[in-house]
Amino acid sequence: VFGLAGLMSARGRTIAELGEFGFLSTLLQRLRGGAGVVVGPGQDCAVIRCGGRNYLYTVDALVEGVHFDPRWASPRRVGRKSFMVNASDVAAMGGRPRFCVVSIGVPPAYACRDLHALQRGIVQAARACGAAVVGGNLSRSERVFVSIALLAEAPRRLVTRRGARPGDQVYVTGSLGDAALALQQLCTKPAMEPSAALPRRLLEPSPRLRAGSFLVGSGIVSAMIDVSDGLLQDLGHICRESDVGATIRTASVPVSAAYRRVQGADRRLALSGGEDYELMCTVPVPQVQRLEAHRARLGCRITRIGEVTRSQGVRLVGPHGETVDPVTCGFDHFRSGSQ
Amino acid sequence: VFGLAGLMSARGRTIAELGEFGFLSTLLQRLRGGAGVVVGPGQDCAVIRCGGRNYLYTVDALVEGVHFDPRWASPRRVGRKSFMVNASDVAAMGGRPRFCVVSIGVPPAYACRDLHALQRGIVQAARACGAAVVGGNLSRSERVFVSIALLAEAPRRLVTRRGARPGDQVYVTGSLGDAALALQQLCTKPAMEPSAALPRRLLEPSPRLRAGSFLVGSGIVSAMIDVSDGLLQDLGHICRESDVGATIRTASVPVSAAYRRVQGADRRLALSGGEDYELMCTVPVPQVQRLEAHRARLGCRITRIGEVTRSQGVRLVGPHGETVDPVTCGFDHFRSGSQ
Repeated sequence: VFGLAGLMSARGRTIAELGEFGFLSTLLQRLRGGAGVVVGPGQDCAVIRCGGRNYLYTVDALVEGVHFDPRWASPRRVGRKSFMVNASDVAAMGGRPRFCVVSIGVPPAYACRDLHALQRGIVQAARACGAAVVGGNLSRSERVFVSIALLAEAPRRLVTRRGARPGDQVYVTGSLGDAALALQQLCTKPAMEPSAALPRRLLEPSPRLRAGSFLVGSGIVSAMIDVSDGLLQDLGHICRESDVGATIRTASVPVSAAYRRVQGADRRLALSGGEDYELMCTVPVPQVQRLEAHRARLGCRITRIGEVTRSQGVRLVGPHGETVDPVTCGFDHFRSGSQ
Repeated sequence: VFGLAGLMSARGRTIAELGEFGFLSTLLQRLRGGAGVVVGPGQDCAVIRCGGRNYLYTVDALVEGVHFDPRWASPRRVGRKSFMVNASDVAAMGGRPRFCVVSIGVPPAYACRDLHALQRGIVQAARACGAAVVGGNLSRSERVFVSIALLAEAPRRLVTRRGARPGDQVYVTGSLGDAALALQQLCTKPAMEPSAALPRRLLEPSPRLRAGSFLVGSGIVSAMIDVSDGLLQDLGHICRESDVGATIRTASVPVSAAYRRVQGADRRLALSGGEDYELMCTVPVPQVQRLEAHRARLGCRITRIGEVTRSQGVRLVGPHGETVDPVTCGFDHFRSGSQ
């Protein structure tokens, strides 16, 4: 889809102009598979073959001033989240986290106490997900960054963003919009009590490893992604990769009681806000009954919010059946402001 | 060696005060093995068990203003080196690079052309070493950083920093000091022609994968490390981990003709300068003859520079047999200034 022409026209432009996703698209054509590469870049995780079995491999970074603000994200929480965002990518492909290596950058004046707390956050999060931190690197850096590469056991069956078919039902776990709402509140009231429920959704995400593992292992889902950039943007990834479209009933998009108290019926943040780390999947109609029957095994709610269509693009349908203008914004941190 | 007391006294101090290695030592006690962890943190690579065979796993980062200066390190070279420093860790354990994931941070105003060049550098370096880039992450960051996690096939036999025994002979590949000398020259004359031989040693390191693989696979070496922080510092790692000491004949430390032209007989930069990415190994006496017989299979020079001793610490012996004061400085980028 992205040919050499796209790459050429990118010359002389800055990343801010092109946007993260535009840039990543031009990158993907550069990376071709090699021996042992089962699924290359462009999915939540790559799939590689090690010792005769499949492993998932992914990397993600948190950067101070971009992904977190030290005024409200404690070092322990930053460490924890930097692992969990990777675990969420693994959850999206139904994997089991095993081994990670950690690359940390901090200023020379960073307190050892804070660095220990940061590491404790990483190690505890890894343990909670069944993984071990096996290596690390510490660099000097003006701003704090934490980059974690995570290796996970792949399930027997591989599910990517590519398998959605017209007629499949679209489901999402848990609730959406809390993280974006928390961010909005923290930006206007930075002194907010950091243990409040909404900020906890932003600062202490819980990847849906159990749900992801069941949904993939049971053969129920045809495509899956984690909702890190916002429902619309991430559904867009599934649609483009699967060459389909989708219709979403906005009133069906699940939100928490805390969200509803603040936003009422307004689902905009739930549709476009990032960092919820829920799972969105497509389920072929013959599997819907099995999914409904096995809800209890997911460890969280799952809600049907729409269906996959033959016609391209994501169409939103309002509470009265009317078509709502698609909100195209998601979280692209090269274009939007910092937290 | 670093108990809880060490950790406690670190509280309230900054990383700059404690130093990178001091800090890493306190970190290590936090990380214990888990299922599938064959060798935990603290070596050039961790060793993990995937699909019934051993893999090496390592991570390293380059940060703008700390590890490179954009005035003389082009984006392509930064990309190339960020892969090669990881490949060097793999070489130190005799492995074969296979899969890497890349985490990049750049400012919004960074030119797409430069980012493409950076990535091209990474991808080309990976290919040259037999590895595939299978995933990546792009973040906004005030300063450029590139963090790469590399997974490599482990050799049947595991060699770490721990196997040196008194009487073993100390060897080093290639020549030392060029990178440190190049850095010194670039800092005083930043306009230096970037393709000159010395800067190329700094900007385009060539990890000793072939030599590492042969030295480990043949069973010749008892311990090995890559010389990234300087000969003395890295030899210190081997000595501490193996609970031994070493005597080094300074006049035997191999330097290039270019180094000799500038520094004459002064070996200080060759002893303490970092970033040469050569291999240093210890060879039991019964293996010395085999090593000498198979020199041609290494793809590079290898020079005997001293021997392992029972008494702790590294002792330097000058050209006339006199003991030279040990130079204890290596490259600790939290303590030394930036490039």
